[in-house]
Amino acid sequence: MFELTILGSSSALPTSQRYPSAHVLNAHERFFLIDCGEGTQMQMRRYRIRYGRLHNIFISHLHGDHVFGLYGLLSTMSLAGRQYPLNLYAPEAFGSLFRSHLLDFDVHLNYEINFIPLSSKDPVKIFEDKNIIAYSFPLQHRVPAFGFLFREKEKERNIRKDVVKTYDIPVAQIHRIKKGSDYYTADGKLISNKKLTIDPPEPRSFAYCSDTRYFSRLADFVRGVNLLYHEATFAGDKSKLATRTGHSTAEQAATVALEAGAHKLIIGHFSARYKNPDILLEEARSVFPDTIAADEGRVIQI
Amino acid sequence: MFELTILGSSSALPTSQRYPSAHVLNAHERFFLIDCGEGTQMQMRRYRIRYGRLHNIFISHLHGDHVFGLYGLLSTMSLAGRQYPLNLYAPEAFGSLFRSHLLDFDVHLNYEINFIPLSSKDPVKIFEDKNIIAYSFPLQHRVPAFGFLFREKEKERNIRKDVVKTYDIPVAQIHRIKKGSDYYTADGKLISNKKLTIDPPEPRSFAYCSDTRYFSRLADFVRGVNLLYHEATFAGDKSKLATRTGHSTAEQAATVALEAGAHKLIIGHFSARYKNPDILLEEARSVFPDTIAADEGRVIQI
Repeated sequence: MFELTILGSSSALPTSQRYPSAHVLNAHERFFLIDCGEGTQMQMRRYRIRYGRLHNIFISHLHGDHVFGLYGLLSTMSLAGRQYPLNLYAPEAFGSLFRSHLLDFDVHLNYEINFIPLSSKDPVKIFEDKNIIAYSFPLQHRVPAFGFLFREKEKERNIRKDVVKTYDIPVAQIHRIKKGSDYYTADGKLISNKKLTIDPPEPRSFAYCSDTRYFSRLADFVRGVNLLYHEATFAGDKSKLATRTGHSTAEQAATVALEAGAHKLIIGHFSARYKNPDILLEEARSVFPDTIAADEGRVIQI
Repeated sequence: MFELTILGSSSALPTSQRYPSAHVLNAHERFFLIDCGEGTQMQMRRYRIRYGRLHNIFISHLHGDHVFGLYGLLSTMSLAGRQYPLNLYAPEAFGSLFRSHLLDFDVHLNYEINFIPLSSKDPVKIFEDKNIIAYSFPLQHRVPAFGFLFREKEKERNIRKDVVKTYDIPVAQIHRIKKGSDYYTADGKLISNKKLTIDPPEPRSFAYCSDTRYFSRLADFVRGVNLLYHEATFAGDKSKLATRTGHSTAEQAATVALEAGAHKLIIGHFSARYKNPDILLEEARSVFPDTIAADEGRVIQI
């Protein structure tokens, strides 16, 4: 399982249908909340993502449309009886800020928060478990902002069960063969690993870029990802406004996908001036055809 | 027009259907937002309450489920181009807190906020215009908390048009007669005001009590109101929990309505443990029959 659920596709001005930025990545049943705009906890309930599954929250930058759902969510998880620690990755300044703000509102969490500050100006590993490695990388916005890259680890080779049977390979050897070893039969015959195994699936990857203005080095940070989420706040006729406010046009989002050699692009963080994302989608597809638009509740397999 | 719209009926743990506390009172086309839980701005959009109509926000107390929608709403109103000042009534401590928190998130409002601190331990007038007077009064909760009472002003007497015609009363006299004066005809005959006018409609009133534990003096603060909103977080079997957490049971809410001689009661702020408010409604009605339950989007004429 490696899939992304969109909880919020709007930019700073939400509507009754579009919520501010929030996304859940399910990476092998480990759930990552990426940004936490107002209403995230209600959206999680709506799309049946259980609070208890959530152990990592990644905040890209300290603007309200990416953060203002966090206080309520943290508080709700406490009221719901959470006791497991939660890892919170966010720009450095947020560390003291969120704690004092919760206290201002008399919120005393009954679980620990491990705060992991984001500050590196280069791509850097911030998370690793047995299936996934996650990196942060810098974006260019009006305040310090970070993108995130999630890569599956290389998997072991898949054993061919028929061949195991033919050569009657003992279980003790299987582990070595999965790692790539050849096999010697009892009478000393070499069976090459190629005959014993088939290639594992390619490791998949997902990158998240919001909020950011276009800059050419961004493509290097997300090179070859299977799915690229990139903000597309504006259409191309607002490119000056995009640059001034530290945002991207749909065309620029698609350009990053193209330059990075991404397999698929999903655009989001739409300005409320667009009743629907059709014009943005059309613009992006003219540069990078395999583009889809974020929409509340949409689930994308990576 | 004197009506209440429910935007949020849940307590601290919202669901996908029930939002945290938020209510809009339309008092003669002057709009008051009473509490501002997470998601209020989306609920306002959903129920077509325009941000531009809103000039007064009343915050009962500094718990997240009554406040966490405020930062987003203030920010959105600024992005939407608001320039008119906004009056914000909230417990004293919030004055510096909300301003510093907005700055932490790089929010620079393009309109003024007049902050009016609530701190009085007695009922006190906090707002007046030509139609309405609003008062705050103390509640009993875990942190300083305030209820609000909105009273229509006494209206002028209604002139009987037929009588005006009969006596050919000059327009210049009408204003005095509406205030209660009698009228002397040209030949000195006294026409009593009673014959010239009919009683104006009774001034209506609305009171809001959330969050609070039961205390007997509360009924004095909301004496005779047409509509009483009272929190009913729990059913009667949780009365100890209610007392400990500074909340009320449905029975206690109804008792306040009964003791105050309210005309109608609306209960809200339901604990998420109740799938629907039926049990709370039934309990309240056994004490005070004219009770209804808050529900998102519900509009109650006062």
